[in-house]
Amino acid sequence: MKSYRHSIEMHTEEREQVLDITERVQEVCARSGIADGFALVCSQHTSSAVYISDNDPALTEDLRRVLAQIVPEGTVYAHDLADPKGNGHAHIRATLVGLSCSVPVTNGALELGVYQTIYYAEFDGQRTKTVLIKVIGE
Amino acid sequence: MKSYRHSIEMHTEEREQVLDITERVQEVCARSGIADGFALVCSQHTSSAVYISDNDPALTEDLRRVLAQIVPEGTVYAHDLADPKGNGHAHIRATLVGLSCSVPVTNGALELGVYQTIYYAEFDGQRTKTVLIKVIGE
Amino acid sequence: MKSYRHSIEMHTEEREQVLDITERVQEVCARSGIADGFALVCSQHTSSAVYISDNDPALTEDLRRVLAQIVPEGTVYAHDLADPKGNGHAHIRATLVGLSCSVPVTNGALELGVYQTIYYAEFDGQRTKTVLIKVIGE
Repeated sequence: MKSYRHSIEMHTEEREQVLDITERVQEVCARSGIADGFALVCSQHTSSAVYISDNDPALTEDLRRVLAQIVPEGTVYAHDLADPKGNGHAHIRATLVGLSCSVPVTNGALELGVYQTIYYAEFDGQRTKTVLIKVIGE
Repeated sequence: MKSYRHSIEMHTEEREQVLDITERVQEVCARSGIADGFALVCSQHTSSAVYISDNDPALTEDLRRVLAQIVPEGTVYAHDLADPKGNGHAHIRATLVGLSCSVPVTNGALELGVYQTIYYAEFDGQRTKTVLIKVIGE
Repeated sequence: MKSYRHSIEMHTEEREQVLDITERVQEVCARSGIADGFALVCSQHTSSAVYISDNDPALTEDLRRVLAQIVPEGTVYAHDLADPKGNGHAHIRATLVGLSCSVPVTNGALELGVYQTIYYAEFDGQRTKTVLIKVIGE
């Protein structure tokens, strides 16, 4: 068994922003030299998520709108009583979307469906964050 | 380390339909010859999900109703402006439920809890889709 | 490749309760003797979830409130027609949060972000349940 670990930095200009990280994860996978196994792609934070969706950027706007409705920013969150920055909604949104995803690796590359794109969803941005990629296989 | 990869086809007659795929994943696991490890079960699409829940079919109706409320079909999604088929809601529902799940493999079989059942949830069906199963272990 | 499997018991006094299980998962990881790989942490039930979030206990209250709004307990669930205990909402909440999570293992320890905490969320408690931890690596 081989394993390869690499972190990539996430830079966001907006407080909420979704980044397509497919190519960067693919590069890490190629550099790992692992032909067969899987890649675990993890936000190292708790106010951002990693998920797979369609390659249409408009969908990230749709997701933002749905999340804004079910986990609104205006509401008072217990978490924010201790945190003047008020990012309670960001943590709950990350929990619902999920902090990480696992992708099969076959023939040295991520085996994604035709339209599958790996996204990093930042819910409390404007500072550098980290996504950890662990490729495991042989 | 050994790895085994197999795709299974998903056929749906309804636009929204949930299929119990536990037995089919179990078969792939048995065929893999892997005694110890885990199985990664992935929708290869972005408008369907894979999840584990109770073995009561009534619950799939409950999930459908909750999702219809929080991600309604009637609303205009930005994604649908470019897509006359209007499946924006299907993508967002898949994101919330999750496209894949990982199941431990022990003694050559999926190690599921007593009532745990693996489901494929189709949110934009009536055509053949694919679930990729990757069993990794030894 | 090595693999280590261990179950830990979850005891809850409330019907809904969230437990920080980070230290217990870390212990299992250490006992596994696996230096490099990942840990799959799974609820063996379908009315409880495992997820990673911030180490602020107030957030578990926030999550409870959001889930109570989008998957209310009062509503009639089809699942509950056959189950006098009425835990339909518990199953759907578990589906939305997710039954399991995967955590990278590096240098013999879980590689979590600074504030990342592993939680077990019980939505139908007051009885003993099980979380299965499978550490895979070398």
